[in-house]
Amino acid sequence: MPDYNHLSTQQLRQIKDDLLDRYRKFKSRGTTLDITRGKPCSEQLDLSSDMLDIINSRSYLTQEAVDCRNYGGLDGIPEVKQLFAQYLEVAPEEIIVGGNSSLNMMHDTFMRAMVKGVSEGCPAWAKLPKVKFLCPSPGYDRHFFICDYLDIDMITVEMNDTGPDMDQVEKLVAGDDSIKGIWCVPRYSNPTGVVYSDEVVDRLASMKTKAGDFRIFWDNAYAVHHLDDKPARLKNILTSCKQAGNPERVFIFGSTSKITFAGSGVAMMAGSTKNMAMTKKQLAFQTIGPDKLNQLRHAKFFKTVAGIEDHMNKHAAILKPKFEAVQDALDKELTGKKIADWSRPGGGYFVSIDTMDGCAAAVIQMAADAGVKLTPAGSTFPYMKDPLDRNIRIAPSFPPLEDISAAMELVGICIQLASIEKILTT
Amino acid sequence: MPDYNHLSTQQLRQIKDDLLDRYRKFKSRGTTLDITRGKPCSEQLDLSSDMLDIINSRSYLTQEAVDCRNYGGLDGIPEVKQLFAQYLEVAPEEIIVGGNSSLNMMHDTFMRAMVKGVSEGCPAWAKLPKVKFLCPSPGYDRHFFICDYLDIDMITVEMNDTGPDMDQVEKLVAGDDSIKGIWCVPRYSNPTGVVYSDEVVDRLASMKTKAGDFRIFWDNAYAVHHLDDKPARLKNILTSCKQAGNPERVFIFGSTSKITFAGSGVAMMAGSTKNMAMTKKQLAFQTIGPDKLNQLRHAKFFKTVAGIEDHMNKHAAILKPKFEAVQDALDKELTGKKIADWSRPGGGYFVSIDTMDGCAAAVIQMAADAGVKLTPAGSTFPYMKDPLDRNIRIAPSFPPLEDISAAMELVGICIQLASIEKILTT
Repeated sequence: MPDYNHLSTQQLRQIKDDLLDRYRKFKSRGTTLDITRGKPCSEQLDLSSDMLDIINSRSYLTQEAVDCRNYGGLDGIPEVKQLFAQYLEVAPEEIIVGGNSSLNMMHDTFMRAMVKGVSEGCPAWAKLPKVKFLCPSPGYDRHFFICDYLDIDMITVEMNDTGPDMDQVEKLVAGDDSIKGIWCVPRYSNPTGVVYSDEVVDRLASMKTKAGDFRIFWDNAYAVHHLDDKPARLKNILTSCKQAGNPERVFIFGSTSKITFAGSGVAMMAGSTKNMAMTKKQLAFQTIGPDKLNQLRHAKFFKTVAGIEDHMNKHAAILKPKFEAVQDALDKELTGKKIADWSRPGGGYFVSIDTMDGCAAAVIQMAADAGVKLTPAGSTFPYMKDPLDRNIRIAPSFPPLEDISAAMELVGICIQLASIEKILTT
Repeated sequence: MPDYNHLSTQQLRQIKDDLLDRYRKFKSRGTTLDITRGKPCSEQLDLSSDMLDIINSRSYLTQEAVDCRNYGGLDGIPEVKQLFAQYLEVAPEEIIVGGNSSLNMMHDTFMRAMVKGVSEGCPAWAKLPKVKFLCPSPGYDRHFFICDYLDIDMITVEMNDTGPDMDQVEKLVAGDDSIKGIWCVPRYSNPTGVVYSDEVVDRLASMKTKAGDFRIFWDNAYAVHHLDDKPARLKNILTSCKQAGNPERVFIFGSTSKITFAGSGVAMMAGSTKNMAMTKKQLAFQTIGPDKLNQLRHAKFFKTVAGIEDHMNKHAAILKPKFEAVQDALDKELTGKKIADWSRPGGGYFVSIDTMDGCAAAVIQMAADAGVKLTPAGSTFPYMKDPLDRNIRIAPSFPPLEDISAAMELVGICIQLASIEKILTT
């Protein structure tokens, strides 16, 4: 496998011609493939189909005989709180189980912060001249969209192999009290697959922040979404925050969107009892309660966290071959050529590719022209702007295996073409 | 039936002794009854039980074969939008069908107004020195709680038999641009049962408002919740607003909380295509989509608005005897005594009693002491303060018929006792 950076112009032109030939052949097949979003496939959804039969016209009472069809129960039914408290490794009084979307809970937490501040006596963010947020990147576009929507300045922080660059984070938060928080996807981070190290967790929990109302938005979206038999550990951030004397610093989020049904799961948030008590008080203005029937479905379907873990093994069995297909195609097309790096995640929903600087948008456009839709260029960075134009997010969960292999072969071809173009013109 | 206001002190004392005797007997039975909230009873919930069996492991696709288990569909699946557009008498492009709570949609509409303003170019309410809202009262406590929570000043407007006092409303909105909206429950208003007249609807739609971003929050919670065979008409507010050249003035809300399941219904909002387009744009920051499986349950269960109407007849058959029991007890205890007026609603969930001024809190306290919990005093007014201390909200849907009769007999006794006390001491 030759390093493209050390080939002659003539060699590169020859390779380019061969690649263009393959590209045109792919394009002429008229294939259309979409690997843009981290969306479960039908086979994954089928794993939870039985959950739909659990609640029926004769089954709608909680263990305590509360009628889930009626009003009430602001923070979730007891058995679902119990289950997901264990899932998130918090106490039942440290969790609120809500509706079908953790994004909704995150967004609403921002909205409450904007209008009321994050805690009694803290300023409403909307009344401040400026609010800033740290955005470890590449990261999750929908997190960044919330900040952009609310005119919160986003500060890009580099992602290392063990989490955000903590030297950078600590320096920033120590010096600027308009920095009110940080977005984190701590396990199998979107899109890099990075799992935060214990050190990173502890430093986030204990760092000195100039803003007294600094908050970590801890989106533990892939808490049990392992691909390997030996799942990566993640230190408990709430425990670390308590130990550091900052129990109110973290809002934890999670959902079953990628465990049961992406559109009809249950979402949850967790944090200190003080934070949860305040949130419950505020939620009482918003709703009389979440959909308890759907919560009961989940509690009865899984029963225990072990039940969830067993279930996740079935997801892994479906997803693992798809992730392997991505690796196989990238290995075959790119290994040794020194034109791209990519992640080999132990879980989560994405593979993150870094091309040579200035090539990602061209690759994504080229792939689109040949019928393969990738996540738009820049999506993994604040303001949709990848400063080095090099990150490509691959979401292999939804398409069938053969489509992934085909799509990734094309992506490999496009990366080579864009890289050769770059080498030839610089 | 003697007018208590014209009896002698001695006569009143005699009556009082008899009433106290009955009161003590009731109290000694140790009954505990709760008629505080407009909550459906189990028999009503049972009417929709079959809905739970409609969606199962073999049935989760929309008419257009969209998998409701997966992500997507921000504003609702087509068949549920079609159904509830007809229900709210709007076009499918004028409706958004969401989660399980219309209160949630109202609250969130306020939050968006606070942070972003109600329309492009309109000021964020949170940035204004003062925002005020008109609150026709007696009204719905949870509406008022939202204003209170957001530090929005509430201006009480009198409720007449045909809706809010429009002379008062028109004068207020014409003169003060910090008045940004009005709360309305236009049909079978909570708690008075008032149905807004065509004239009131038209005047609300066409009145001159000093605030360019004035909004009517039209909570059509009881759109089809009739008790009579001949339901009261309600003029279409969106049509009136369009005709008056104010298409953006109204946000309409509704839900099936009191049609199917109080905790697991579907909620909806409606308005001009411009308002709905903006709302959808904003919702995209909050969620990937609502619980489509529950929407599909509703669409399949009802099929048509006629299906909903048939279903509501079954609710009426359960509720009507309960409302009659309230009337019977009040008639028996209070008629002719000139110490209270009460509503005889054609639908909705409440009976509203007006006692003599200064008696409501005493009645509610006395009833509580004897084991009957009523909606807290003042609840139907802004800031929980009933200026004349006279309104009592009765919610007869939840308890069994015999409990309602017993509770209302006690309420009748308490009203007489408080009234006699007042007459004797003034």
